[in-house]
Amino acid sequence: MDRLDAVLAHIDANLEPALERLFALLRIRSISTDPAYAAECRACAEWHVADLAGIGFAATAHATPGHPIVVGHARQGSGPSALFYGHYDVQPVDPLELWDHDPFEPKIETRADGTGVIRARGASDDKGQVQTFVEACRAWKAVTGSLPISVTVLLEGEEESGGVNLPPFLKAHAAELKADIGLICDTGMWDTATPAIVTMLRGLCGEEVTIHAADRDLHSGLFGAAAANPNRVLARILADLHDADGRVTLAGFYDGVPELSNALRTQWDTLGFDAGAFLGAIGLSEPAGERGRSALEMIWSRPTCEINGMGGGYQGEGFKTVIPAVASAKVSFRLVFDQDPHRVRAAFRDHVRARLPADCRAEFKEHGSGRAIAFPVEDPAFARAREALGAEWGKAAVFIGGGGSIPVTSDIKTALGMDVILAGFAHDDDRFHSPNEKYDLVSFHKGMRSWARILAALAEGRA
Amino acid sequence: MDRLDAVLAHIDANLEPALERLFALLRIRSISTDPAYAAECRACAEWHVADLAGIGFAATAHATPGHPIVVGHARQGSGPSALFYGHYDVQPVDPLELWDHDPFEPKIETRADGTGVIRARGASDDKGQVQTFVEACRAWKAVTGSLPISVTVLLEGEEESGGVNLPPFLKAHAAELKADIGLICDTGMWDTATPAIVTMLRGLCGEEVTIHAADRDLHSGLFGAAAANPNRVLARILADLHDADGRVTLAGFYDGVPELSNALRTQWDTLGFDAGAFLGAIGLSEPAGERGRSALEMIWSRPTCEINGMGGGYQGEGFKTVIPAVASAKVSFRLVFDQDPHRVRAAFRDHVRARLPADCRAEFKEHGSGRAIAFPVEDPAFARAREALGAEWGKAAVFIGGGGSIPVTSDIKTALGMDVILAGFAHDDDRFHSPNEKYDLVSFHKGMRSWARILAALAEGRA
Repeated sequence: MDRLDAVLAHIDANLEPALERLFALLRIRSISTDPAYAAECRACAEWHVADLAGIGFAATAHATPGHPIVVGHARQGSGPSALFYGHYDVQPVDPLELWDHDPFEPKIETRADGTGVIRARGASDDKGQVQTFVEACRAWKAVTGSLPISVTVLLEGEEESGGVNLPPFLKAHAAELKADIGLICDTGMWDTATPAIVTMLRGLCGEEVTIHAADRDLHSGLFGAAAANPNRVLARILADLHDADGRVTLAGFYDGVPELSNALRTQWDTLGFDAGAFLGAIGLSEPAGERGRSALEMIWSRPTCEINGMGGGYQGEGFKTVIPAVASAKVSFRLVFDQDPHRVRAAFRDHVRARLPADCRAEFKEHGSGRAIAFPVEDPAFARAREALGAEWGKAAVFIGGGGSIPVTSDIKTALGMDVILAGFAHDDDRFHSPNEKYDLVSFHKGMRSWARILAALAEGRA
Repeated sequence: MDRLDAVLAHIDANLEPALERLFALLRIRSISTDPAYAAECRACAEWHVADLAGIGFAATAHATPGHPIVVGHARQGSGPSALFYGHYDVQPVDPLELWDHDPFEPKIETRADGTGVIRARGASDDKGQVQTFVEACRAWKAVTGSLPISVTVLLEGEEESGGVNLPPFLKAHAAELKADIGLICDTGMWDTATPAIVTMLRGLCGEEVTIHAADRDLHSGLFGAAAANPNRVLARILADLHDADGRVTLAGFYDGVPELSNALRTQWDTLGFDAGAFLGAIGLSEPAGERGRSALEMIWSRPTCEINGMGGGYQGEGFKTVIPAVASAKVSFRLVFDQDPHRVRAAFRDHVRARLPADCRAEFKEHGSGRAIAFPVEDPAFARAREALGAEWGKAAVFIGGGGSIPVTSDIKTALGMDVILAGFAHDDDRFHSPNEKYDLVSFHKGMRSWARILAALAEGRA
């Protein structure tokens, strides 16, 4: 039995304790966007420090103006090195009434076919995925006493809430964090049988706008029509963000957005993406984006504008004839290719200001931003990781695009000059950011095995 | 000293106990729209029954499918009769953080000029106003042992939440409730020195719409643009309710809306309405309604459409990149002249349905509705009430329009065939429906005296 086989066997024999550790992690309510959970975020960072230290990492929780950043080093001389990034924070759980159970009391459910799922907030995004890597390291250490390559683990606590403290941290600790390649486990498989490496990711620009009019809430009978209504002003602003063809109307929005190359379009065509099944799984049937674009383009290679939240006036039970003093919206833009988040933000603010009637003013709040990214799939490290994944799953891994934004990928590229291999084991039905989030047990198990193989493959490449 | 003078003197000498009774009433949290406060609404009805019984009314709280309706009779043989209507329910108090004190712990504040205000939810709308009438009756009974005319008091508990149970109640009890004239104290003075009788009132049509798309909340990175976003659909629907000139776009909306008669326009011109001051008091400067209309037209004689509430997606602290499964809005229409609330409701629903893209559906919820109304100011009872108000305030009362809707006025007209004198003592700065609602102490005091005079005047008219 060679070393890798022994490591894989160790993983198979120790699934139970690995799950127990994951459950302990999932019980921590590390909701980063809500200040009420700051102590839980700190506790989560400390949990990781202790866990990493337990397998021989030199681990520290670094204080930031927000939630701590965990860094753990396990160096193996001058051989190849990797920086693994993950995040320990999770999304809020509202609406809580749609959960079938306590989001922070993880449990295993068994499907009719006998397969299992881990159900909890963060099971898939990103605690379960992070632990696939950490447990692979644990198995290597247990079986061989060391790791195949030098590994630094970097765990952030603000991925779900803008992550403004990570870029300066990367810059300040560049020498300490720099490695040959970045590794991230926060993405999905192509389908349940086909592993994938995401090589294109959309960027993000998040904005919050609040429209102010009268200095108080008003009775709509006494003041209706005569007084400016922020709800009406905001509805106009939001409606005008798209034209009748579903294109975003902001000035210069499509600057830096080329048509897809024929090569990429051909590769994507071979994926056999089933738009009907993709939308059908969530109760929809027609792609809602730009007229004339395929659903795959909409989620991988076209920029978007989404209203993630809006509210103003009375939203409780019954009716209240009020004209509110304020109304607000949270809007995010997914960016592709060379779109500049700062220019998009400025164009959005211009769009709002151009639609402010007399007596109304707009207040803006900046949320996260990051550029889109594309990694060089011709790099040998990508080929080795792809082969390792293929060996585990019995099917070649595919290089795909990703609709979600993982701003840290461009932050790592910018601050550390490193490319990143994005390999994850999530599924489209994992319901991340939604009630009843889950992670397949097979994703967790074969995810650990996959990382064990990738670590070995990266070592061979440089040995 | 004649009987009326003695009654007025009694009111002056007993302001303190009248305030104590009002404070007891204001402490009851009778928020009708929120089911959590049903018991408090019932307690409020029972408080009125006991209070009316204490001054010799035969009073009963009638159960309804919603909150109870209080009826009290004090009959004086076959002479003239009046039906006084008021409501004991109040608006919700959110946003609570904008109140300077507990909304249900009333207190007297003294202004720099020495005048006082009663501050509490319901101080003006409508508990303070209702008690001006009840206390006038109490004074008449205390001084003379009887009332100048037969009086029935009718107090509803659902005025702020649709009032669907009142119309059938009026019909079922028509014989018991029928009187020569209706009296309502739920309106304001023209200015702090000039009493007013409202003779035109706008009608109302309230609608709630919920847009449904995917069967769950979605991650905007994974599904953004491809999945229909109810926030975006709703924003378009709401923005399209008005055209660029501020006119409501619903089909047939302006049917039955004539231009103002020259006679009424001339009378209104003499009022010297100061649009700048009206809007300036709430931090605004320009009438926001239909282009080319005066602010007075906008609030008295033109129909409106207001978005009273809207919401969808994540509205908490921070940011959440979600595409929500639903978004909803509460919209109300103020109606004038012969507009039909049922046709307006149908046109609104058509407007929504015409703007539903694939995969979206709309769910509607009907809130209150009532037609606009105009009373015959040439009726002698109106002239007598006007004179009585003039005697109290030293300045002739003016006949004005009212922007708010008091659906019960048309319900009384329809079910009982009665006209209604709407005389109230509220001020524009009373902040009803808003945080820190108040009622001027002088409104309360001279309001009681005004009703004492009106009761006498109505008796003389028929004696």
